Amino acid sequence: MSEKSLTYKDAGVDRETKDRVLADARATIRDTDTAQVVGDLGHFGGLFHLRGYRDPVLVSTIDGIGTKVLLAAAAGRLQVAGHDVVVHGANDVAVLGATPLFVLDYIAAARFTPQAVQAILEGITAACRDEGIALVGGETAQMPGVYTAEGLDVVGCVVGVVERTEICDGGTIRPGDALIGMASGGLHTNGYSLVRAVMARCRWSLDDTPPGLGMTLAEALLVPHRSYRRPLQALARAQWMRGAAHITGGGIAGNLVRILPEGCRARVEVASWTPPPVFEVLGRAGKIEHDERFATFNMGVGVIAVTPAERAGLAMDIARANGAEAWIIGEVIAGERGVELV
Amino acid sequence: MSEKSLTYKDAGVDRETKDRVLADARATIRDTDTAQVVGDLGHFGGLFHLRGYRDPVLVSTIDGIGTKVLLAAAAGRLQVAGHDVVVHGANDVAVLGATPLFVLDYIAAARFTPQAVQAILEGITAACRDEGIALVGGETAQMPGVYTAEGLDVVGCVVGVVERTEICDGGTIRPGDALIGMASGGLHTNGYSLVRAVMARCRWSLDDTPPGLGMTLAEALLVPHRSYRRPLQALARAQWMRGAAHITGGGIAGNLVRILPEGCRARVEVASWTPPPVFEVLGRAGKIEHDERFATFNMGVGVIAVTPAERAGLAMDIARANGAEAWIIGEVIAGERGVELV
Repeated sequence: MSEKSLTYKDAGVDRETKDRVLADARATIRDTDTAQVVGDLGHFGGLFHLRGYRDPVLVSTIDGIGTKVLLAAAAGRLQVAGHDVVVHGANDVAVLGATPLFVLDYIAAARFTPQAVQAILEGITAACRDEGIALVGGETAQMPGVYTAEGLDVVGCVVGVVERTEICDGGTIRPGDALIGMASGGLHTNGYSLVRAVMARCRWSLDDTPPGLGMTLAEALLVPHRSYRRPLQALARAQWMRGAAHITGGGIAGNLVRILPEGCRARVEVASWTPPPVFEVLGRAGKIEHDERFATFNMGVGVIAVTPAERAGLAMDIARANGAEAWIIGEVIAGERGVELV
Repeated sequence: MSEKSLTYKDAGVDRETKDRVLADARATIRDTDTAQVVGDLGHFGGLFHLRGYRDPVLVSTIDGIGTKVLLAAAAGRLQVAGHDVVVHGANDVAVLGATPLFVLDYIAAARFTPQAVQAILEGITAACRDEGIALVGGETAQMPGVYTAEGLDVVGCVVGVVERTEICDGGTIRPGDALIGMASGGLHTNGYSLVRAVMARCRWSLDDTPPGLGMTLAEALLVPHRSYRRPLQALARAQWMRGAAHITGGGIAGNLVRILPEGCRARVEVASWTPPPVFEVLGRAGKIEHDERFATFNMGVGVIAVTPAERAGLAMDIARANGAEAWIIGEVIAGERGVELV
């Protein structure tokens, strides 16, 4: 046994860096406060004053961004990781007709650099301001032995609220309804382990520009997860949204089925839109078959909203007026609960 | 380029295992439903009906259990990881006088075994039942390249509620108040990177029984994080709690200071209790100095509640009647805001 005494630093954990980064981050975090945040930072829990709801149902979701975080780190663009955990969660809340209120973040790595944490927090706080969400809490953990040298994880828990009678969970969907697709900006936050396998096989780096992509892989793969909060909230307010699905892991079929009631079958016409080139470039290079592409990637559709057929035109106008690129991608038919891609 | 087509599985991600584990877990998860959980699993967000509050403030916290998770995995006792993320969060919420309502979990690794996820979920759901908390959402992520082969992380986000006029944030603490310590069961969830450094230096394994410990290291180090929800809620209801601190990373001084108002100084008499043997055994073996021990470990005190001095005796009776081992560990004096250990 050595005579030297051990400190936390000897365990590979740099407490000073963490404290300094968090002190620096305080001003940035306060900047996300909405009027409903109570008290100062430093409480054991983040405090959020819930006002103006008669019969509130809280809607919550937690997720990371998968191995996209490794590409973001390699490209020196960790802001996108922070942005994505907020927006991904906000979308999950908004598809239920709810309003996202606040977020808590968890950032972990074997060892931080102040630059990495600062970049992630910049992305989180910028997305919070865009979405009107308060950052009420968070934790940074240095865990040598758990994370690889280059590995880190960024997790966001978003909590929102909806009046109980206005929950939009797909229960009223019926045959004849229209499926309105809203364009994704790219892969969003799913399929990146497969992307990395393709990159390894093709020996591509993030700076490469594969034929047909028209931009570098870094540009194509680090497109931020797009927010659908505004169009979804506008559709919900108009009471024309019977349900909406956030297209994440599992693709269109895996997610759209989650909102379908018994006896309703979604028929999606895949020729009704042209996926962004990144999907074809990755699919061809990795020889990823059609079904596997659709089961892994969003293929250009970030959200699908279900509306009465006679409202579909107006619903698309509303979605477009709120920043979404929207088109009809199919319909609901009577049949066994499920999704068919035709 | 190989002719073989890539699938998600080629990326090191085993989708089937994950799906099967989650299907198996559904029954266990439903078992945590309180009457306020709305709808079924599978929504994009977890739904929780907030009822019975006049002017609610939501209290939220997110955290993992640090590298304790590595010891739990090595000992084949991952239930404790699930238990600890729930209880740690419930304590963070309860020190503010709030009632924990629901939790979302995030479990990530390079690759799961069904056994590991099942064990973690067992721990989460058992703790949820004990605490009356609903598990409303969660995510499992397989992230090759981010996590080491043996690494995994378990994160819990706990959301609770308190009436706005009943927030107990330490603002009313004044000189003369008593500090009531409640016994911890051991290290809880902090200091484990340092513990692992001591174990490496001493070449200890989890099965070893170092002199003075009276049990194996596995037994001493994997004691579950103790819940203080019942005693804290009872004290808050009696309106005898002016503030309470959950003693986590940063130790007694680092956490107690968080609830002190300006002009209030906490004077903690460290001779007023005997820390469990694990702290002395680790401290001696690692030659960890007194100050570093107190800055890293809870040293046997899991929560400190601040009460008016004239109520201290009754407050301790209430805490004890609700399962806590409680004693007076010091007092609040007038002076510069801070904590002194004497």
